[in-house]
Amino acid sequence: MARKPAKSRPEPKPPVRNAADDDDTVVTALKLTQADLTPAMQAYFDKCMEKLGFVPNVLKAYAFDMPKLEAFVAMYNDLMLAPSGLSKLEREMIAVAVSSHNRCYYCLTAHGAAVRGLSDDPVLGELMVMNYRAARLDRRQRAMLDFAVKITAEPGAIEESDRHRVREAGFSDRDLWDIAAVAGFFNMSNRVASATDMRPNSIYHGRKR
Amino acid sequence: MARKPAKSRPEPKPPVRNAADDDDTVVTALKLTQADLTPAMQAYFDKCMEKLGFVPNVLKAYAFDMPKLEAFVAMYNDLMLAPSGLSKLEREMIAVAVSSHNRCYYCLTAHGAAVRGLSDDPVLGELMVMNYRAARLDRRQRAMLDFAVKITAEPGAIEESDRHRVREAGFSDRDLWDIAAVAGFFNMSNRVASATDMRPNSIYHGRKR
Amino acid sequence: MARKPAKSRPEPKPPVRNAADDDDTVVTALKLTQADLTPAMQAYFDKCMEKLGFVPNVLKAYAFDMPKLEAFVAMYNDLMLAPSGLSKLEREMIAVAVSSHNRCYYCLTAHGAAVRGLSDDPVLGELMVMNYRAARLDRRQRAMLDFAVKITAEPGAIEESDRHRVREAGFSDRDLWDIAAVAGFFNMSNRVASATDMRPNSIYHGRKR
Amino acid sequence: MARKPAKSRPEPKPPVRNAADDDDTVVTALKLTQADLTPAMQAYFDKCMEKLGFVPNVLKAYAFDMPKLEAFVAMYNDLMLAPSGLSKLEREMIAVAVSSHNRCYYCLTAHGAAVRGLSDDPVLGELMVMNYRAARLDRRQRAMLDFAVKITAEPGAIEESDRHRVREAGFSDRDLWDIAAVAGFFNMSNRVASATDMRPNSIYHGRKR
Amino acid sequence: MARKPAKSRPEPKPPVRNAADDDDTVVTALKLTQADLTPAMQAYFDKCMEKLGFVPNVLKAYAFDMPKLEAFVAMYNDLMLAPSGLSKLEREMIAVAVSSHNRCYYCLTAHGAAVRGLSDDPVLGELMVMNYRAARLDRRQRAMLDFAVKITAEPGAIEESDRHRVREAGFSDRDLWDIAAVAGFFNMSNRVASATDMRPNSIYHGRKR
Amino acid sequence: MARKPAKSRPEPKPPVRNAADDDDTVVTALKLTQADLTPAMQAYFDKCMEKLGFVPNVLKAYAFDMPKLEAFVAMYNDLMLAPSGLSKLEREMIAVAVSSHNRCYYCLTAHGAAVRGLSDDPVLGELMVMNYRAARLDRRQRAMLDFAVKITAEPGAIEESDRHRVREAGFSDRDLWDIAAVAGFFNMSNRVASATDMRPNSIYHGRKR
Repeated sequence: MARKPAKSRPEPKPPVRNAADDDDTVVTALKLTQADLTPAMQAYFDKCMEKLGFVPNVLKAYAFDMPKLEAFVAMYNDLMLAPSGLSKLEREMIAVAVSSHNRCYYCLTAHGAAVRGLSDDPVLGELMVMNYRAARLDRRQRAMLDFAVKITAEPGAIEESDRHRVREAGFSDRDLWDIAAVAGFFNMSNRVASATDMRPNSIYHGRKR
Repeated sequence: MARKPAKSRPEPKPPVRNAADDDDTVVTALKLTQADLTPAMQAYFDKCMEKLGFVPNVLKAYAFDMPKLEAFVAMYNDLMLAPSGLSKLEREMIAVAVSSHNRCYYCLTAHGAAVRGLSDDPVLGELMVMNYRAARLDRRQRAMLDFAVKITAEPGAIEESDRHRVREAGFSDRDLWDIAAVAGFFNMSNRVASATDMRPNSIYHGRKR
Repeated sequence: MARKPAKSRPEPKPPVRNAADDDDTVVTALKLTQADLTPAMQAYFDKCMEKLGFVPNVLKAYAFDMPKLEAFVAMYNDLMLAPSGLSKLEREMIAVAVSSHNRCYYCLTAHGAAVRGLSDDPVLGELMVMNYRAARLDRRQRAMLDFAVKITAEPGAIEESDRHRVREAGFSDRDLWDIAAVAGFFNMSNRVASATDMRPNSIYHGRKR
Repeated sequence: MARKPAKSRPEPKPPVRNAADDDDTVVTALKLTQADLTPAMQAYFDKCMEKLGFVPNVLKAYAFDMPKLEAFVAMYNDLMLAPSGLSKLEREMIAVAVSSHNRCYYCLTAHGAAVRGLSDDPVLGELMVMNYRAARLDRRQRAMLDFAVKITAEPGAIEESDRHRVREAGFSDRDLWDIAAVAGFFNMSNRVASATDMRPNSIYHGRKR
Repeated sequence: MARKPAKSRPEPKPPVRNAADDDDTVVTALKLTQADLTPAMQAYFDKCMEKLGFVPNVLKAYAFDMPKLEAFVAMYNDLMLAPSGLSKLEREMIAVAVSSHNRCYYCLTAHGAAVRGLSDDPVLGELMVMNYRAARLDRRQRAMLDFAVKITAEPGAIEESDRHRVREAGFSDRDLWDIAAVAGFFNMSNRVASATDMRPNSIYHGRKR
Repeated sequence: MARKPAKSRPEPKPPVRNAADDDDTVVTALKLTQADLTPAMQAYFDKCMEKLGFVPNVLKAYAFDMPKLEAFVAMYNDLMLAPSGLSKLEREMIAVAVSSHNRCYYCLTAHGAAVRGLSDDPVLGELMVMNYRAARLDRRQRAMLDFAVKITAEPGAIEESDRHRVREAGFSDRDLWDIAAVAGFFNMSNRVASATDMRPNSIYHGRKR
């Protein structure tokens, strides 16, 4: 007698809740109460609302303690927005390639959207999330990401020859610092986000697709 | 005398070409000539055009040799579409979680779109691409993906206790085979795609966002 | 007073059962009932009996479902037996080197025997099982196995330079596809076998020693 | 004829230069010029001289750019010195255990000295440098370091069960944040230091032995 | 026009030379001259000839220097042959499982043959070479090999809980030492053999199949 | 209302016990009784007392069994003290670099002290413990340590090209053996020490700082 064919599992009905349902309200897995914002931080949150339409969840996560929030904002804004030999897009590309190595849901979502926005090339954002080695980058950007990902994966194995390759691709020593500093910063943020199950604002997902 | 502040690198102009520009025409890095389609394969390509609006690049990649194309199509359709104790969405979730471990650009793109489509939940697709452990899955689907990813990462370390956990989550032995077979299939496809630099049809990227 | 010397554990008596005792009867750890063979599959099983003297356990394992068995057989026979720029021995060498990386008991046993048989060189089979890097291969076969094992170990790190090395060793793009496809196939089979604790027919072990 | 015995290589004479010879003058491998210190940073450097007798090289390394130096100092001082449920020694233990995983010469040297100093137990410093698992820690500190090192080694694999173990060992959610933030910070600093070949002030080595 | 089918690469003729052709004459990749054997070592070599019919290549490799040969032989014979709570077969099982982790061609070949011989179970030898986790071992031997392989793979992560599992499986502290010492010894030998490309006597391959 | 600031955890009082408190009395985690020393071993222990002022704990650990102790001492003294093309310092540098890879508390402590003593350069000892790649070594010693650490980390991946690099740096085949043998020996000792939680004599820590 022949085997009775397996019955297929019926496709689930439209789910009652979606994967991102709580992400805009429950920012981390930690129960920490938001502190009163200092005037500077209130102004910064207001500026986020005005320019982005929302306050990024990472800021809400740090807002239980004003000195921590202010230190994070100061370092972030300097690294990602201050004058540098790296364009803002390049800094965001580093952010996403590092976060891909570390598989950080928060940073891949927020900074993947930034790469899509700054490049006006949605697929470039996808490539940084999925595998930067599959992207057709020029030699400069490839050397930049190779260095950023090597210091992420094997920081103790960096040698002068690695710095040499970065310089050969056209970067100054100051640029090299910036690559290291941005890559280092996301190695920090990825771990704080993963350790606390930080959730990205759901609005990022659909942006600039 | 104070350091002269670094001048920021100007943001690049809207790029002349985008990351996916050739992906619809140059399907792999190999120079292989498409063979004449057999009637069965011609019918299958026609059906793809009718239902999807395009022929997936993986099929074009295999089309240099009809027996290889037919064997691939037969196995793929059986695994992903035939009756099974796993829903079609669950099979696509396995496809993407495995492809994320292996960092396969082609499969993450094509099957990420499938998860978004079948679940009607774009963020679920993102989570499978980025880090399935960050998704809020029920116990069944979490056990399913843990098994699929363990056989991907450490196939030689699988033991009876791993199978036990799958069964405890409600799966039959037949389901367990299907989890293994789908995970195994994408461990094959990920490697063929990466080895040949297979590029996904660009239309996938924007679907169901 | 001097320490009393340890008494050695007596060597065990000739064991009542051996390591392979059930391997010819309990093919996997899953309870799946064999389906009625289709005429084509019955003919294939008959041909195995005639040529090998037994039906390989992997076929029995897939025989709970005819479409799965047929798809597996079609793909396997095309990859391992159809015309190719790779000799049959070379394809078996890839099978074993990949299975060694993945530590798959079933495939190492069955395809190790195949390497011994096709090469008429039992030690070559052992070397593929133990460490292909210790074998004295010519440049062609070494490049072939290096590529096959790299796509096994780090599929996401494959680059044009890896394909270049394969071509430099004398392979065409069609050959490169075949290396990738055979390596990919055993990355699938290794995982299905390990996930289900598939056991090799005991007869393989002593063949061609 | 018998082999002529190998002559032993003569021990080298007292070397002209030692391993740390340039470490107090050439702070990193990058040619970056120190900027004029802002009054706040001048005061901070003066305070270092007064309390430590030297300015830590990491501060000199950042001093090519005042906003970067100020952001680093603000974050560092908040994390390592502000009120917290973790003692200052515990924060330094995290710093060293993380830096040991990442094999960062600068941070192991500077913060190893800090563990020796704060604990008044030189061997505790050695254990954090060499292998924290070999130290006889109480349950609290072991759980703290296990979490810090797991987010260092596998940030994408952190789960609620990991946070649960930290809480079970007596830590609050606020403490958990601090563990993550300190571990994250040294994952950043380790990478900036390794990327730039930052050298520790030689005075650290002999302190509190 | 249809693709011209690939012509298959003709199977190679019976090869002029086999994989093990030089293994009995060129013992390592190093050019070192055998020293005059001391009387004790001459007697030991004679005993090998009498009992095995050959002198194991590892002994020839060490014979460029009598103190090194004598130290190796003394330690080897004590570990593998002296009274112990582990049977001789169990010690050989450890040797092969460790050598499999380290992929040592010499030790897998020589000690794989020993497992086949002492157990009178050729498949047990194969399983130790391929993947000890696929063998159906009793709890005692499984615990023994798990400990031996963990100290091989992650020596710095061993903890009291690992020792506890060994004791729970029925081993004394003296047995635990012996497991560690045998596993340690092959972690040494595997590396000396791989570093020098040591080749096993070809006679091992066919023994006890 | 503003968040109440966290109260900092008070620094612990001077601890009642220190990290090394039992290390001079409880040598390993195993309960093994010291055997009567043979005259040769009694003389060796006496010589240790005379020259070092103490008996290294590793010798006490092996002293439950005289044949094991004697074999260990014979091999150790030959490797580390007999004539060789490697200086005694170079052999100790290998010992520490290997032990750092394996994170062995005992060997890092005892042989780190030896590097400090033989080199008269305390920082060189620290660098071997922390990350030999950060040390400014000449080409000879760098090639020596690269080979020693590669056979530690990936013994199965050693190839003729690795031996070539060692020879190119000025080493003979006999030297190459010695590098491999010393590295191999510490791969053994590291594992015996970690498996048994062997503790270093506390006096090592402060030596030659």
